[in-house]
Amino acid sequence: MIGRLNHVGVATPSIEASVAMYRDLLGATKAHEPFDLPAQGVRVCFVDLPNSQIELIEPLGDDSPVLGFLAKNPKGGQHHVCFEVEDIIAARDALRAKGVTILGTGEPRIGAHGTPIIFLHPKDMGGMLVELMETPKDGAH
Amino acid sequence: MIGRLNHVGVATPSIEASVAMYRDLLGATKAHEPFDLPAQGVRVCFVDLPNSQIELIEPLGDDSPVLGFLAKNPKGGQHHVCFEVEDIIAARDALRAKGVTILGTGEPRIGAHGTPIIFLHPKDMGGMLVELMETPKDGAH
Repeated sequence: MIGRLNHVGVATPSIEASVAMYRDLLGATKAHEPFDLPAQGVRVCFVDLPNSQIELIEPLGDDSPVLGFLAKNPKGGQHHVCFEVEDIIAARDALRAKGVTILGTGEPRIGAHGTPIIFLHPKDMGGMLVELMETPKDGAH
Repeated sequence: MIGRLNHVGVATPSIEASVAMYRDLLGATKAHEPFDLPAQGVRVCFVDLPNSQIELIEPLGDDSPVLGFLAKNPKGGQHHVCFEVEDIIAARDALRAKGVTILGTGEPRIGAHGTPIIFLHPKDMGGMLVELMETPKDGAH
């Protein structure tokens, strides 16, 4: 079922500071423009690596789901891992049938790459928050 | 400086249980044989994705550095991210010159892929434990 490791989601109190770190300390050469995802309560910025991406996520609004993470980890840290799947509904239904808890209503939302996403509960995923996203049909990542 | 996202390191109380999860729930098709890295106090198992890997790490011995992580996160979870670099000594020296703390003595050790590695302190990396590994010269990953 799972395909590419699309990105590692990294929570940060400041996208600007994190982009500077990836650029000036680690020498990453491509950070995209940050943008807001108000429905998900996050501001997002992708840093490209040759084979994958880091997704920097900063809280947006007073009820951002990232605020709790940053309260426990003020400097930020690894927040989730995102795997691509061919068909999000088929993946969701197969996982549910095996007893995996899908977060929220279980209805896919549109994620940062413009394709449907779901999140799987860490209790069923070895303590790791897992995002599944449908592979973009145009081959873009 | 940084190149490919070589792997995401995921701590687990049981490699066998985690491999079963990746195989039976997430449909991963290739898990390598687990092996011990006694010098680092871990047992390791790589799960292949089309573009990267998950490195499952289980404590090995009574002073394993992973025991503290599992005490805080009994189910396991994301432990570190590993980026490839061309030259580990050049990378280390450049990072040190910019004030980044290298863990341990700073002398590279041989990592799970047989090439030299160092770890960067999370306090300088946005709360994230970062491993740098020298890209295998034979192109294998």
